[in-house]
Amino acid sequence: MTVLSITTDFGLTNGFVGVMKGVIYGIAPDVKIVEITQLVSPQNVREGAYAMWRAAPFFPPGSVHVGVVDPGVGTERRPIGARLGDQYFIAPDNGLLTPLILDAQRNGETVEFVHLDTPKYWLPKVSNTFHGRDIFAPTGAHLAAGVPMSELGTLITDPTRLDMPHPEKTENGWLAHVTIIDVFGNLTTDLPAEALEGQRDVLIRIREREIDGIVESYGHRKVGDLVAVVDSEYYIEIAVVNGSAARILGAQVGDVVEVIYQIRL
Amino acid sequence: MTVLSITTDFGLTNGFVGVMKGVIYGIAPDVKIVEITQLVSPQNVREGAYAMWRAAPFFPPGSVHVGVVDPGVGTERRPIGARLGDQYFIAPDNGLLTPLILDAQRNGETVEFVHLDTPKYWLPKVSNTFHGRDIFAPTGAHLAAGVPMSELGTLITDPTRLDMPHPEKTENGWLAHVTIIDVFGNLTTDLPAEALEGQRDVLIRIREREIDGIVESYGHRKVGDLVAVVDSEYYIEIAVVNGSAARILGAQVGDVVEVIYQIRL
Amino acid sequence: MTVLSITTDFGLTNGFVGVMKGVIYGIAPDVKIVEITQLVSPQNVREGAYAMWRAAPFFPPGSVHVGVVDPGVGTERRPIGARLGDQYFIAPDNGLLTPLILDAQRNGETVEFVHLDTPKYWLPKVSNTFHGRDIFAPTGAHLAAGVPMSELGTLITDPTRLDMPHPEKTENGWLAHVTIIDVFGNLTTDLPAEALEGQRDVLIRIREREIDGIVESYGHRKVGDLVAVVDSEYYIEIAVVNGSAARILGAQVGDVVEVIYQIRL
Repeated sequence: MTVLSITTDFGLTNGFVGVMKGVIYGIAPDVKIVEITQLVSPQNVREGAYAMWRAAPFFPPGSVHVGVVDPGVGTERRPIGARLGDQYFIAPDNGLLTPLILDAQRNGETVEFVHLDTPKYWLPKVSNTFHGRDIFAPTGAHLAAGVPMSELGTLITDPTRLDMPHPEKTENGWLAHVTIIDVFGNLTTDLPAEALEGQRDVLIRIREREIDGIVESYGHRKVGDLVAVVDSEYYIEIAVVNGSAARILGAQVGDVVEVIYQIRL
Repeated sequence: MTVLSITTDFGLTNGFVGVMKGVIYGIAPDVKIVEITQLVSPQNVREGAYAMWRAAPFFPPGSVHVGVVDPGVGTERRPIGARLGDQYFIAPDNGLLTPLILDAQRNGETVEFVHLDTPKYWLPKVSNTFHGRDIFAPTGAHLAAGVPMSELGTLITDPTRLDMPHPEKTENGWLAHVTIIDVFGNLTTDLPAEALEGQRDVLIRIREREIDGIVESYGHRKVGDLVAVVDSEYYIEIAVVNGSAARILGAQVGDVVEVIYQIRL
Repeated sequence: MTVLSITTDFGLTNGFVGVMKGVIYGIAPDVKIVEITQLVSPQNVREGAYAMWRAAPFFPPGSVHVGVVDPGVGTERRPIGARLGDQYFIAPDNGLLTPLILDAQRNGETVEFVHLDTPKYWLPKVSNTFHGRDIFAPTGAHLAAGVPMSELGTLITDPTRLDMPHPEKTENGWLAHVTIIDVFGNLTTDLPAEALEGQRDVLIRIREREIDGIVESYGHRKVGDLVAVVDSEYYIEIAVVNGSAARILGAQVGDVVEVIYQIRL
């Protein structure tokens, strides 16, 4: 039993992911398929990268994660496979795996890549517009069914990487950025809580609003309050209790979030 | 083989439910996961309660239903487990199981609750904002994998219950309420068809419109007609044939629906 | 292990498809369930027909496809089963299988139909409004679990068929039609690429815009260009590179697409 996850920008309307699952079960009948999300904004590689990065660490060792956000489908961009720690990945070589690669390197884990250039693991007929079905799904299924990654293609060491924003140290705190806006309107930032070294007495500025300190959880303030919390991946998050910080602040991905250590006299 | 269902307000965009599934398969590889819905309106416990109540009776005996609509995440509200008849439930203790509990009691079925206070069945690290992943998913997976409910926590008898609206008998009929509006714009009410004791010759008033009698099915009237039918759970439903009663009436959950027995001279 | 797919217009909000899955696992615990889409426009049989037709050929032989787009639920319209080639189908008899039937006949494959008139394969209690749960899901599950199709009902030869648009040959090309608009705003037409017999030097007219020639893939033109490509099912498709042709052209399903062979002097 291997788990195979799927992350795409294919949406839920047209059955594209259903077709990929039909292909996968034809090759690997015992796999367990999990959808991370099919609602990545169309062709937004960066957003897809964050989605896969947040989900993959919680999957069983040996899981295969197929990601398809692929504006370059049908051009010369390579399809790639990756082993990062104890998880496997199949994706177009356009930076979709960047945050996962950075974390694996930071943690000293195994990092291996192949160029998926072995057509016998693809569908017999490959279209120019739907490699999710014709290349990524069948290759992921063969990997999940036990074909070694080294059989799927040629070893490479130069996968494409995105420039990812990262928080900058300032004289008295950090300049961070909004990275993800979730369905509740909560704003994840790129500042890990551990960067604050236990300091919770901070002033946070975003879109000309100020937040005083980091609270334990949403429920510790009253409905409608703008708060900062430590999110479920242990990054600083801006939220409105039972409301939408995104809507109330008019916030967008990329917004600067200023974090200032407070010195109380 | 056990079926585990998931109902949340986590939406489909951010991969939260995909992460929960990754956690579940790591603990219970043989479970079958079914999503009821992840589109409960954010933090709307009542709407989530209706969704779980409509779905659970159609699942195989021994199924585990994980529900997470949890405005109080990270506060002192308890996580609970429940056995109701031959089905199991895992949820925050905020009333999400109320209609299921009421039905089980009405039917004289087994009703047992535990406070999920045994951290060894949670993820090793528990965040303050995502108990769906850190507590509810792993606990549900252990239950589905065969851990007895009594091992998961301490027996309790006082789960939180919501005040649910209920239909009131009038001199010549019933005052009922709209409980659910579905994707077609059909309006479910809280009046079970059996309350009418076979009487279909009723006048129904909602939002200053009148409907004369209850028809067999949508297809028995012409497109655009406002009709009353018996819905798939055997409650009185207001619908527009091939249209949206919700839009045409401007109806909302909670609207009063007057049902009057007609006396024809 | 049999794969069972589900295609409906039930949406993702109300848990209708989750309930169907609960019913299916109760009857066929080893089946693998795949959702094609639940977002067919409400009661749009034609749209549902295209969705099933595009997906089914990629599923393993012996798969069972349950389709429920069913404006006539509760009337006398028949529920039917079909074997088309090596795939099985369960649907209301309203034309939902038309393109699949046409293809099977064109390819000289097995074509068999039954009227699903054997209540012992349904749920014990059948509502008037939710045959997806009460008839189609359980019948599909029994079929997937090994009950022969001939046991499920009476052989028939007259399933309902939709009039489907089809491309017309003109003096110097084709008059085709937009059949599907996908989530990216790409416009599928009903003109198979093979109808052009290798001729790619065509002028394409849609909504008073002209496209010169058919390109290899989206990535071969620059962002924002209006292009024609061969889609993943080998039909002519109109697209805007990294944009939405549907939005830019104001295109709709049914729009005429004129394809003219170019004679260059």
